[in-house]
Amino acid sequence: MAVNLYDVAYDLEKAIRESDEFKSLQQSYSEVNTDPAAKTMFENFRDVQMQLQQKQMMGEEISQEEVEKAQQMVGLVQQHASISKLMENEQRMSMLIGELNKIIMKPLEELYGSMEQ
Amino acid sequence: MAVNLYDVAYDLEKAIRESDEFKSLQQSYSEVNTDPAAKTMFENFRDVQMQLQQKQMMGEEISQEEVEKAQQMVGLVQQHASISKLMENEQRMSMLIGELNKIIMKPLEELYGSMEQ
Repeated sequence: MAVNLYDVAYDLEKAIRESDEFKSLQQSYSEVNTDPAAKTMFENFRDVQMQLQQKQMMGEEISQEEVEKAQQMVGLVQQHASISKLMENEQRMSMLIGELNKIIMKPLEELYGSMEQ
Repeated sequence: MAVNLYDVAYDLEKAIRESDEFKSLQQSYSEVNTDPAAKTMFENFRDVQMQLQQKQMMGEEISQEEVEKAQQMVGLVQQHASISKLMENEQRMSMLIGELNKIIMKPLEELYGSMEQ
């Protein structure tokens, strides 16, 4: 049965690879990755996001200038066609993975839920 | 294809429910849940764990007394047969879920990995 379990997991991996969501994401990544200006802008954007997230996690203050800089970067990347498409496709992929996780984790959620009665 | 993707996810959910790991975990939960002394001890233990984790996340100091209390609780629950079995089965289930997640997330990890070249 455990062997069957892993077989089904590999089937799901394969189905994810063949999904529209994943193929669109691959295409978007390729377009941004092969355009140096887009790639640099996207990486800068992700760096700024990461820095702000880390400051928030550590309870550090985020200045007005940092907030405005992040807003400007969001505006810039949203106007850039291939980056905007990439972020949209990341979002769709993320929602799909979230839905798959909900399905797969259902047995445990039911079990833990029953413990708290 | 998307429909197929969800079908495979439901197959995996079913395979998890029927796995030895999940059935053993269900059994352990039931044994602890129906023994009031064990259930109380286990819930107290989880509460203490959660409190320490939250203090660490917030960068708060954890006192020597709190460390020793947590150690004593670990010792107590490890000597309690049904709680010890439950924690062992939770660990096995957690490792299984971790392995399934690695398989399912492989396409995305490869894609993100290629972006960083």
